[in-house]
Amino acid sequence: MSIKEEILQIAKEAKFASRVLANLSSGTKETLLLQIAEAIEFNKERIKEENHKDVEKAKEKKFSRAFIDRLVLNEKRIENMILSLKEIANLKDPVGKIESMQKRPNGLLVGKMRVPLGVIGFIYESRPDVTVDAFALCLKSGNALILRGGSEAINSNIMLAKILNEVLQEALLPEGSLQLIKTTDRRAVMEMLKLDEYIDVIIPRGGESLIRTVVENSTIPIIKHYKGICHTYVDEEVDLKMAEEIVFNAKVQRPGVCNAMETLLVHEKIVPDFLPSAIKRFQKAGVEIRGDEKTFNLIKGIKKATEEDWSTEYLDLILSVKIVKDINKAISHINKYGSHHSDAIVTTNYEKSRKFLEEVDSAAVFVNASTRFTDGKEFGLGAEVGISTQKLHARGPMGVNELTCTKFIILGNGQIRE
Amino acid sequence: MSIKEEILQIAKEAKFASRVLANLSSGTKETLLLQIAEAIEFNKERIKEENHKDVEKAKEKKFSRAFIDRLVLNEKRIENMILSLKEIANLKDPVGKIESMQKRPNGLLVGKMRVPLGVIGFIYESRPDVTVDAFALCLKSGNALILRGGSEAINSNIMLAKILNEVLQEALLPEGSLQLIKTTDRRAVMEMLKLDEYIDVIIPRGGESLIRTVVENSTIPIIKHYKGICHTYVDEEVDLKMAEEIVFNAKVQRPGVCNAMETLLVHEKIVPDFLPSAIKRFQKAGVEIRGDEKTFNLIKGIKKATEEDWSTEYLDLILSVKIVKDINKAISHINKYGSHHSDAIVTTNYEKSRKFLEEVDSAAVFVNASTRFTDGKEFGLGAEVGISTQKLHARGPMGVNELTCTKFIILGNGQIRE
Repeated sequence: MSIKEEILQIAKEAKFASRVLANLSSGTKETLLLQIAEAIEFNKERIKEENHKDVEKAKEKKFSRAFIDRLVLNEKRIENMILSLKEIANLKDPVGKIESMQKRPNGLLVGKMRVPLGVIGFIYESRPDVTVDAFALCLKSGNALILRGGSEAINSNIMLAKILNEVLQEALLPEGSLQLIKTTDRRAVMEMLKLDEYIDVIIPRGGESLIRTVVENSTIPIIKHYKGICHTYVDEEVDLKMAEEIVFNAKVQRPGVCNAMETLLVHEKIVPDFLPSAIKRFQKAGVEIRGDEKTFNLIKGIKKATEEDWSTEYLDLILSVKIVKDINKAISHINKYGSHHSDAIVTTNYEKSRKFLEEVDSAAVFVNASTRFTDGKEFGLGAEVGISTQKLHARGPMGVNELTCTKFIILGNGQIRE
Repeated sequence: MSIKEEILQIAKEAKFASRVLANLSSGTKETLLLQIAEAIEFNKERIKEENHKDVEKAKEKKFSRAFIDRLVLNEKRIENMILSLKEIANLKDPVGKIESMQKRPNGLLVGKMRVPLGVIGFIYESRPDVTVDAFALCLKSGNALILRGGSEAINSNIMLAKILNEVLQEALLPEGSLQLIKTTDRRAVMEMLKLDEYIDVIIPRGGESLIRTVVENSTIPIIKHYKGICHTYVDEEVDLKMAEEIVFNAKVQRPGVCNAMETLLVHEKIVPDFLPSAIKRFQKAGVEIRGDEKTFNLIKGIKKATEEDWSTEYLDLILSVKIVKDINKAISHINKYGSHHSDAIVTTNYEKSRKFLEEVDSAAVFVNASTRFTDGKEFGLGAEVGISTQKLHARGPMGVNELTCTKFIILGNGQIRE
């Protein structure tokens, strides 16, 4: 079978399965998710073994610290997977909910019924913990799922998909419910992107070139999960201690993920009180600082930032720093160079907090908190498929509700239009 | 200036204007819309004159009755435009609304703020009444608008855009707030579809080839407004009189629009009681009937439907008719050949009504009413930009709310992530 035929076959089976999954009862879905949690627990060692193969290969290939960090499935990550499955099992089933039913003057009852999207194609980086979260959210929302994970995680993903499918098959669900594209051939993605007859949405997560490829080639609607170039702006009116804790946390706590801060913006008037000590703390923690002209002249032992730095997602212990004249300059820098992901202001001034919230054009806008909180669980949505950086349909952490859509239902008793 | 440069310029001006429009107060927007209503009233005769030119040309070119029907701006249509403007002026402003704010265990307040999409590119058929509705909804929701109407309506659209822009300019709003692409050169659309840096969403309305072109070439997210191949299924358990009224209305009341019925499906057991008299009434009203094998053999003086008929949007006094074994066959016919727009069942059976509502995969699913009701006003949303036939972001009639999106806002007091 050619790749083209193979992917077409996968898409057709997914469409068929989606009709079955759309009609599963909430109880059945809950039970399945709890069984899967048990199966993951039971197969923990096998998962770690397969993951170990992936990690060793990635190390040989000299992938970055951040890359390896995202790839590892250790005891704690697997425990989190299991917790996540149980949490998703307990979420409210969004499917079938009737919203905003109203009676029109002519007696028609008009409302919206929440239904699954259908078939979801998920293209993501080498993060095998995402495999299980994505599947669990798709099952909960009644969607069939086609997975295309990063090739460095292939052994982990094959094992995980196998464990999930064993549970589904015991429950007599169609094979198309969850399919992993096993070939790492790039043409598989290109074929997938044209199958708008069978696939309802493509969710791509990852770097710039992947997202570009998907955007330029897909005839299927997309929910983009683009990089996170996140900023924190430290205002002149500020609690200095709070600002230092927030920016340190945003950069250092887990630098390899998309909601970590990449650029620090500092109001020029607060620079002497704030910047030297903050940078000292960053440097102690091993963070490389790349400053703009002013910062570079002010502080020794740092690098000079280039124009490219302002739009770079380091995903590593590197931070670019820029001194700005006021909040307007901070906001325009963020809207120009950012990736519309997560951005924060630290300030004690009420008007500036409102201005920042209203004018920063990002999926998540923070006042006085670390950008690291952009996350489905932290926002109270349960687990997330990812963090959408586009405006249509879903923006920011995307949970189980965002994997559904609505249709209008209209109940009449013989109404015709005049 | 080349077309490429011209369109780029338009897109940049729209982006600039979108920042201004996003921050207009609800009061200002309401006043502007009422002023526009007055300006339309005042310029009624000029509008009719320009429209007359378009209609005459279209008649010379032998466009169909349905096409001309959509093109005409008569007294009634202009009155409806004005009414629509007043209605939209009075709608609740969706921008700035804070939704589902909750306090998380760590004290963070997490909620969603509703904001405009930004710049909307609207590509639509030769229906000049839509020009004003689309603009009014975009203004109400704080979006800048780039219009590309069907070339047969160009004189009408230029006049309407001129009237709208005079009001905007008096209010000192940027010129990019509303722009009409005046060239009818097809390359203008192709250029527009690549400007994802400036345009946030493309809303294409129209026929299959237009939608295909847009889907295949756009790097901007799309909200599709595809054709309406609408069905009515007459069940065996049915109020015969109600069924006849509903199917007659769905086909004949305004055949040139997307929510008119194109295919009638009839349960085989009700055929003798229902079909001959229904078809007689259709024929009296000048409707051409194209029946499947069984219908063709049963009733004299009708044509035989081809496979192509089942997926054809006639937009005219033509109806395809098929006799089906049961509700399952009806639903699978609709999901296979329909355009996921509007479909109805006429039945007295409760279980079948529920089954139809749940299993028909369309934007609007009706029980015992004419599909002609699929419309923003009829559904209580106020005016509509159109009827989305896709699942993402907006499905079915798309009003002012669907022209906005949300961003997360997070209010902290120093929270960092552990």
